[in-house]
Amino acid sequence: MNKATMEEIDFAKGTGLVPVVTQDAKSGKVLMVAYANKEAVDLTLRTKMAHYWSRSRNKLWKKGEESGNVQKVLDVLVDCDGDTLLYVVDQSGPACHTGNETCFFRKL
Amino acid sequence: MNKATMEEIDFAKGTGLVPVVTQDAKSGKVLMVAYANKEAVDLTLRTKMAHYWSRSRNKLWKKGEESGNVQKVLDVLVDCDGDTLLYVVDQSGPACHTGNETCFFRKL
Repeated sequence: MNKATMEEIDFAKGTGLVPVVTQDAKSGKVLMVAYANKEAVDLTLRTKMAHYWSRSRNKLWKKGEESGNVQKVLDVLVDCDGDTLLYVVDQSGPACHTGNETCFFRKL
Repeated sequence: MNKATMEEIDFAKGTGLVPVVTQDAKSGKVLMVAYANKEAVDLTLRTKMAHYWSRSRNKLWKKGEESGNVQKVLDVLVDCDGDTLLYVVDQSGPACHTGNETCFFRKL
């Protein structure tokens, strides 16, 4: 696996955010997509717990801080053009606020 | 698995785009994240081949139209708040333009 540095992340101009895909390490399921700013990524790397930036509440957000459904982060991957992250996690409880295991529970 | 309709997709105001996570059906690997407008999603559903909207080239884009590395779409899932899609695909060849199997080949 190649290495990337924080400087290679292209936080979107204007918003300062990148989308983050969160995948369950065990099941391989895609659990959710959220957004992170630099501070959220820093905290995620330092604490090994998934942090995001909530666009609706406009604040830093530790996943599970209220629900208890925290995500232990095993790996943070960066995509080829540095504008998307992948958190590989151990998920406690359901990832989705609806109580579903994953946010992707509907077929189009 | 619940059902969602096209009307439930929240194409982002202004851009008319939603992020799409693409996952390999066999390996479970997250291959890439790209963007789609309504036309790209329509075409994907009708042809069962992954279509996106290229933000850099500002045009509709059938994945693999130049490289041959097409994606046969088995499922299109919608997340809980309708603003992100998940294409579950059979990937031909590498998904990444770098020649890597997935765009997420670098660890932060």
